[in-house]
Amino acid sequence: MKLQVAIDRIALEEAVGLARALNGHVDIIEIGTSLIKDYGNVAIEKIKEVVTGSQILVDSKTIDEGTYEFNQAFKYGADIVTVMGAASYETLLACYEVTQQQGSTMMIDLLNLDPTYIASITDFPQAIYLLQSNQAVSEIMDFKQLYGHIQHLAIAGGVDYNATQALAAQGIVETVVVGSKITNSESPIDTAKKFMEVLKV
Amino acid sequence: MKLQVAIDRIALEEAVGLARALNGHVDIIEIGTSLIKDYGNVAIEKIKEVVTGSQILVDSKTIDEGTYEFNQAFKYGADIVTVMGAASYETLLACYEVTQQQGSTMMIDLLNLDPTYIASITDFPQAIYLLQSNQAVSEIMDFKQLYGHIQHLAIAGGVDYNATQALAAQGIVETVVVGSKITNSESPIDTAKKFMEVLKV
Repeated sequence: MKLQVAIDRIALEEAVGLARALNGHVDIIEIGTSLIKDYGNVAIEKIKEVVTGSQILVDSKTIDEGTYEFNQAFKYGADIVTVMGAASYETLLACYEVTQQQGSTMMIDLLNLDPTYIASITDFPQAIYLLQSNQAVSEIMDFKQLYGHIQHLAIAGGVDYNATQALAAQGIVETVVVGSKITNSESPIDTAKKFMEVLKV
Repeated sequence: MKLQVAIDRIALEEAVGLARALNGHVDIIEIGTSLIKDYGNVAIEKIKEVVTGSQILVDSKTIDEGTYEFNQAFKYGADIVTVMGAASYETLLACYEVTQQQGSTMMIDLLNLDPTYIASITDFPQAIYLLQSNQAVSEIMDFKQLYGHIQHLAIAGGVDYNATQALAAQGIVETVVVGSKITNSESPIDTAKKFMEVLKV
């Protein structure tokens, strides 16, 4: 299982410092939506400069203008870019096309979608589907039963050590997303390393 | 009826030039979502510097972290900020609260929502509801019949002179949003002025 650490809603210098410190210690470093809206593509560029040993995810939360926004994020250094599941199917297709051309990865954020709607957008085999949940362990099981053919699953929302360990044991989720539990901890590196240990179970 | 002109997906210097030229000639100057994602809050600041005679709308398309993103947009100079109708009700409430505290305006973007869902988020009386449509004139009529109690309506999507004139005659919509039809025209000012004439019918 992979660890994705979200950096968001802080000053850019602090974000770059955190990214530099976490580089190579975690699988994926996420540049949060609000950080992008605060600083623009320069945030991706500056973080890209210091991140050489982890992947970079740009949490664009694109919901329209998919081709433009995905091209921009990849151009400035993203390895993975997010689109909202709430976007039109046309937008999802456009984002997927750009992503496939780049040989990169698209993540579909399922925030606030009902199960029936989710069922209609499960046909992007290379995409990672992100479930936002506060009951990661039980919900991911239900989710997998509903949408068994989804190959790549990630989960975000209040994931702690225990949940991470349980998720690793379940073996369903590919990536867990952790934010302030790491970035606001006394030593983000030590906390990140502990998460990396736990998820290798 | 008001005219909102969307500036998006161009270099910031060009966007500032367009905003300076349109200042005072149109009711609302929109800073597009991708422009924000490209340049961050500095785009709002720089456009705010040259826009003294029109309102500024920041098309944040917020879908999460409503309190943070709305506070940031207002702080840097927005008069109106957008949130996605697809956001959770909790996020809509958070955005509305910040907006009311600021004495400013929230716009709810109804992109890709079904009618049943829209019915569940029509209880923000001071908000402007934005309908995205390619058949503005007929769809706005149907919309008004479904959600008669919505007080403030805007429409975006392929609005030309004829549609603007028809919408003005209908008297249902408060604001029409026009993008590239103005900003990509030979003389954006002249085109904007023509729209302003038409919508005063």
